[in-house]
Order: sequence, then structure tokens, then C-alpha cells
Amino acid sequence: MDGRSLIQPGGPPWVGTAVDWQRRYTTDEAKLDLTIALSRENVDRETGGPFGAAVFEIPSGALVAVGVNSVVRLRNSMCHAEMLALMTAQQRRDSFTLAPPGVPAHELVTSCEPCAMCLGATLWSGVSRLVFGARREDAEALGFDEGPVFPESHQYLRDRGIEIVGGVRRDEARAVLQLYLSRGGTIYNA
Amino acid sequence: MDGRSLIQPGGPPWVGTAVDWQRRYTTDEAKLDLTIALSRENVDRETGGPFGAAVFEIPSGALVAVGVNSVVRLRNSMCHAEMLALMTAQQRRDSFTLAPPGVPAHELVTSCEPCAMCLGATLWSGVSRLVFGARREDAEALGFDEGPVFPESHQYLRDRGIEIVGGVRRDEARAVLQLYLSRGGTIYNA
Repeated sequence: MDGRSLIQPGGPPWVGTAVDWQRRYTTDEAKLDLTIALSRENVDRETGGPFGAAVFEIPSGALVAVGVNSVVRLRNSMCHAEMLALMTAQQRRDSFTLAPPGVPAHELVTSCEPCAMCLGATLWSGVSRLVFGARREDAEALGFDEGPVFPESHQYLRDRGIEIVGGVRRDEARAVLQLYLSRGGTIYNA
Repeated sequence: MDGRSLIQPGGPPWVGTAVDWQRRYTTDEAKLDLTIALSRENVDRETGGPFGAAVFEIPSGALVAVGVNSVVRLRNSMCHAEMLALMTAQQRRDSFTLAPPGVPAHELVTSCEPCAMCLGATLWSGVSRLVFGARREDAEALGFDEGPVFPESHQYLRDRGIEIVGGVRRDEARAVLQLYLSRGGTIYNA
């Protein structure tokens, strides 16, 4: 066992400075604009796949944590944007759930529909809402696999009190996927 | 962004010394015996939930990495035994896939059927086989949720070339779940 970390929190160095941490993100569109901007920056800087995510407090819209896809950079197939955003948020809350008693609810916002792994992680994380931009078929059009997610998978989360809203700023999110494709980005796990 | 790691590789300090790293694990039963021993040790030492996992090379049976459930200890709902075993294995292979060209295949062995998140992670990890002990209903009997996993979820992995074998050493694996319950262990994400 060595002391190296498996994951660097928060993603590549530019992430900390590319985000306005003081702003209140009060609409789903504003939240998607942030995660899509992160996904685009990740492609522009060639630090990972075309996916960005963030965790917000409800209802204040305060930004808690962000993540960008880091699979290739960190050589870790679990480092999807959503996973890094959720892990960083839990680290900042010092809790394995984002729904402990007496604190505001949280939501996960992501530029693209979560894969099977990230959908499971969403359920365990304690968030109350999930909002995404591009849809499964948009990612699959690039050659990315979304894994075993079925209509009843989303229903499973809804039955446990998680609101799911999809397709917000879909065209803008899809444009970043196309940008990544046009630049010949790696389609890992195709 | 600070420099703290989100995850400590390999789990609690005892893990490195509780495992025979030189041994060749040549049967599914021997592999399950190791992961069940890890799950039991995790309960005995009160370092986490009753779940253990390991990644092996095929066909040598060489042990590559292990993981024990660390959700409560690391305050991170994504730190299931399988996730830590897969992340550590990828770190040791310095690759985001355990199926790069020219290296032996790998398999994930876990004391209990993977939840939705870990099943997705299994698919992305590049392993060729998944072997587990206790079944979904054994974990659910304790109050743990397994998430949106359906029969077609396992078929989805099989269709992509992953062999799945369940119920190996099931009684022994289930006994550790019962031990955890009898000691009043935390049922997180219930």
C-alpha cells in the first residue's frame, strides 16, 4: 500500500479558477450552463472527455463542488464527472450522505445523462434532484456506452424521492460532444 | 481545491498485512474465501461494512488489488469494496482499463452481488469476469439497498463478453452479513 491518492479532488488545476464560486445558480438553465462550460473547457484544454458536473445546494443555488471527466488523465475508469463532483461534495460536507439531518438538500447537475455507474452513485449520494443536459442517445452517437440503464432505472430513483429532469440545454450540451468527436477525442470503453 | 485525496488506496492499514500477496488463487472458491475473509476482518475491526472484493489476473490467479467497504470510514458513499479494488488495480496497472492489449485478462471477485453503481463500474473497468458470493436478497435482508439492477442488467454485461458467476460460497458470505447485523453495524443508504 503506498500513500498516493487514487483521485485528485476537483479535477485538473484549471477547474478551481474557471468557476465562479460566489455566484448563486438559481435556474436549471444557469446550472447547466456551468456544467456545459466545464465540459467544453475540458475538451479545449485536452484534459478529458466532454462531460462536466456540479453539486448545488437547494434552494440557495450555492455551488458546492464540480467535476470534469478525468478517466484518461487519471487512468481511472470510474472518474466520470459526476463521480468526482459527488465525491468532492461529500468531502466538503465531511459526510457519506448529502442528506444528513439539519442541512439543506443537494442536487447533482450534469452535462449528459448519467451512465449506469453514475446513476447508482447518484442514489447512494443523498442528492434530492438530478438534472442533465444531453441524453443517452447523444452520447451513444459518439460511440460512448451508457451501460445498463433502463426506463425502470430512473423510476427506481424517483420511487426513492429523487426528482429527475432531463434535456435541459440539450442542444448546447450536444454541441460539446460533437466538438470532442471532431477533434478526435478518445472514446474509452467504446 | 486542496491537495487532500478523496480516497486512500487499499483501504484501512490492516489490509496490506492481512493478505497473502504471493499466493496463487486458482479456484473461484479460494478467491471467494479471500474476499469473505476481508469482509469479516472489516467487521471485526469495525472499519466498515461487511463487504470485501479483489481483482485477480486470469489465468494465473495472481492477486492484483483488494478493497473493503469504506463508506463510513472515508465518508464517501462511493467507496464500496468493488470500487476500491478496481481503482487500486487500475492504479497498479497505470491504465484506465484492465483489458489493454498484450496483458492478461482480469476478474473482479466480491463477497456480495454488486450494486447498480459497482455493476456499471465493473463494465467500464475492463475485467472479463465477475464472481460473487452472497446474493442481492441476502444484502437486502439486512436493509441494504442494491439499487436499479435488473436481470437485463447482468445480461447487458454478458452481451459485452463479461462472464458472471454468482452464489459461490454464498453461505459463508451471508454469515458475515449476519455478523454485521448482530453487532448493530450501520446500514448506510438504507
